[in-house]
Amino acid sequence: MKSERYKRGLEKLAEIDGKQGERVVEVLKDISPDFADLLIEFPFGDVYSRPGLDLKSREMATVAALTAMGTAVPQLKVHVHGALNVGCSRQEIIEIMIQMAVYAGFPAALNGLFAAKEVFDQRDAEL
Amino acid sequence: MKSERYKRGLEKLAEIDGKQGERVVEVLKDISPDFADLLIEFPFGDVYSRPGLDLKSREMATVAALTAMGTAVPQLKVHVHGALNVGCSRQEIIEIMIQMAVYAGFPAALNGLFAAKEVFDQRDAEL
Amino acid sequence: MKSERYKRGLEKLAEIDGKQGERVVEVLKDISPDFADLLIEFPFGDVYSRPGLDLKSREMATVAALTAMGTAVPQLKVHVHGALNVGCSRQEIIEIMIQMAVYAGFPAALNGLFAAKEVFDQRDAEL
Amino acid sequence: MKSERYKRGLEKLAEIDGKQGERVVEVLKDISPDFADLLIEFPFGDVYSRPGLDLKSREMATVAALTAMGTAVPQLKVHVHGALNVGCSRQEIIEIMIQMAVYAGFPAALNGLFAAKEVFDQRDAEL
Amino acid sequence: MKSERYKRGLEKLAEIDGKQGERVVEVLKDISPDFADLLIEFPFGDVYSRPGLDLKSREMATVAALTAMGTAVPQLKVHVHGALNVGCSRQEIIEIMIQMAVYAGFPAALNGLFAAKEVFDQRDAEL
Amino acid sequence: MKSERYKRGLEKLAEIDGKQGERVVEVLKDISPDFADLLIEFPFGDVYSRPGLDLKSREMATVAALTAMGTAVPQLKVHVHGALNVGCSRQEIIEIMIQMAVYAGFPAALNGLFAAKEVFDQRDAEL
Repeated sequence: MKSERYKRGLEKLAEIDGKQGERVVEVLKDISPDFADLLIEFPFGDVYSRPGLDLKSREMATVAALTAMGTAVPQLKVHVHGALNVGCSRQEIIEIMIQMAVYAGFPAALNGLFAAKEVFDQRDAEL
Repeated sequence: MKSERYKRGLEKLAEIDGKQGERVVEVLKDISPDFADLLIEFPFGDVYSRPGLDLKSREMATVAALTAMGTAVPQLKVHVHGALNVGCSRQEIIEIMIQMAVYAGFPAALNGLFAAKEVFDQRDAEL
Repeated sequence: MKSERYKRGLEKLAEIDGKQGERVVEVLKDISPDFADLLIEFPFGDVYSRPGLDLKSREMATVAALTAMGTAVPQLKVHVHGALNVGCSRQEIIEIMIQMAVYAGFPAALNGLFAAKEVFDQRDAEL
Repeated sequence: MKSERYKRGLEKLAEIDGKQGERVVEVLKDISPDFADLLIEFPFGDVYSRPGLDLKSREMATVAALTAMGTAVPQLKVHVHGALNVGCSRQEIIEIMIQMAVYAGFPAALNGLFAAKEVFDQRDAEL
Repeated sequence: MKSERYKRGLEKLAEIDGKQGERVVEVLKDISPDFADLLIEFPFGDVYSRPGLDLKSREMATVAALTAMGTAVPQLKVHVHGALNVGCSRQEIIEIMIQMAVYAGFPAALNGLFAAKEVFDQRDAEL
Repeated sequence: MKSERYKRGLEKLAEIDGKQGERVVEVLKDISPDFADLLIEFPFGDVYSRPGLDLKSREMATVAALTAMGTAVPQLKVHVHGALNVGCSRQEIIEIMIQMAVYAGFPAALNGLFAAKEVFDQRDAEL
């Protein structure tokens, strides 16, 4: 039986991206179903569910961090979707990525913009 | 004579942190005054001056990125000051740092929180 | 009232380093007591408490990772203590750090060795 | 004529992964055969051949570090193979990757698990 | 109308790689044409146009940094082209990458060499 | 008895910085004298001793990489000394650091410039 944290995490994840929760569980079921639980419980059940920072600001912070780090392109795309789903505009996401040129260099910003473009194109194609 | 970008950058920097502009110029004058110019012109004159993202969101994105990167503690402190100056609450900054545990690990979040505490203490002492 | 995960985490942390749990709570109490809870609950209550990998191997993995990352010297020292407390020899820790020269470069290995030396010296002084 | 270190390195590499030594020499022969020599001599002839840490612990340390760094997926896969070849269980490798969520963030752990899954699937297909 | 910096940047970029300037503008036109401007103005108009360091040394420094960072393979390939265009030999580029094994580890050097090989092969195919 | 590589490495290190070799041996003698050997043998005996790239270019590449990585300030200072010793001008070092703002962000460049200033000041004080 899943914990309260898991349920809260799954709800928060659904609020950010309806399909993402099932996808995470699915993709991890053959390698580590436990990690799917931890991924729903800690980031979404414990952290994103906290008061004190609105969901849009949380997603913008994550987009900024993942763009700057440059080591997590698949997760960056997930959070570009998430940011759009909770109220960020495309322009705001682009501005964050441009700004990351200042802190993490132009290649990081460029690779972030390319990831954003893929997400935007995918969403346009799904309309 | 300084460029329009320089003037715009200096104004933007003053809007974020009145004393910071002079400090940057001062600290770089013996090693590379040119870099002080570039630092005011590009990040502040070109990027922070762009429309499309409010200043508070810009500072939150920077706090998130520098916390996640973990290689720029002095600059992180400058931007904790900046974030507070443009309307972030201490709680919002703390939440961003806690959230970075998810994306960059607990040590990055912890070192970010310690940097934030130093800034908060300094501001309390200056009251 | 603290959760079961918190209690399990605190016990695991005590098993690794008796004094560390209190120190973490103490050091975070003025900036984010919530983060102290999360730090005990997730890393120690959820992860280190898992079966499937012995505690000595867990600490060696952490020492390897923090040495390679090079962005978390205070936490590396904590885990050099932890590794020694759960049965690693000094020689094993030194070997891990030397090996990190292969994967993260000589500066990372060197800075890891200096951190280890500080811990070893501190423990010798406390005898 | 190859050095003693080269021969020792090639033997150590064969002990970790019989086919890997030839593959490295092959893949580098058109770009830098010298680097193939250095790669066999220093990491395997000098470092992995050292006493003081068993080969299984060495491979676990490497898997931890490369998962945390997130910049070397092809090399991570090589060392997931290596770890399995010298006695790590799949479960131990998965546990190391889950643990890296604590130190390097959830994306690093997730990308490590996906790399491990590829290696596990490849080994299953070769049975 | 484009600024003087833009024109100077475009010229400098043409000096490094005739086709690269148009390609950057092209690839960014659907996601952020403004970032194409910034990319030509700051790196090439402001930085590469500075006196005090010859263009060959500038490209070698960039190849070294991007190889060490390991997060920007597409940009590394662009600058391997650039380095060759401004007078670096293939051997010099290979030596820089081998040297990065010392500072950023063998995987960084290896991935750099693979990127270089792709560029060399592409140039050979275009002859 | 030390190997040929060790002797070659020590000579190369002396060519770069007369006092550095002894200092490295000294500082590592209480934690890992073996690592002092490896540090002289591989980086200096194997890599810096290779033909195909002049010593000045090697030091410039190292300064660029360590500035961009931002995790190795003590080693960056050693190589600012080294670069100056083998013929780089202060201006060339400053230019490399400014250029790193493009690839690794302004904080990396700024922290590099501060490290360079410390080295320059130390050398001025020793005159």
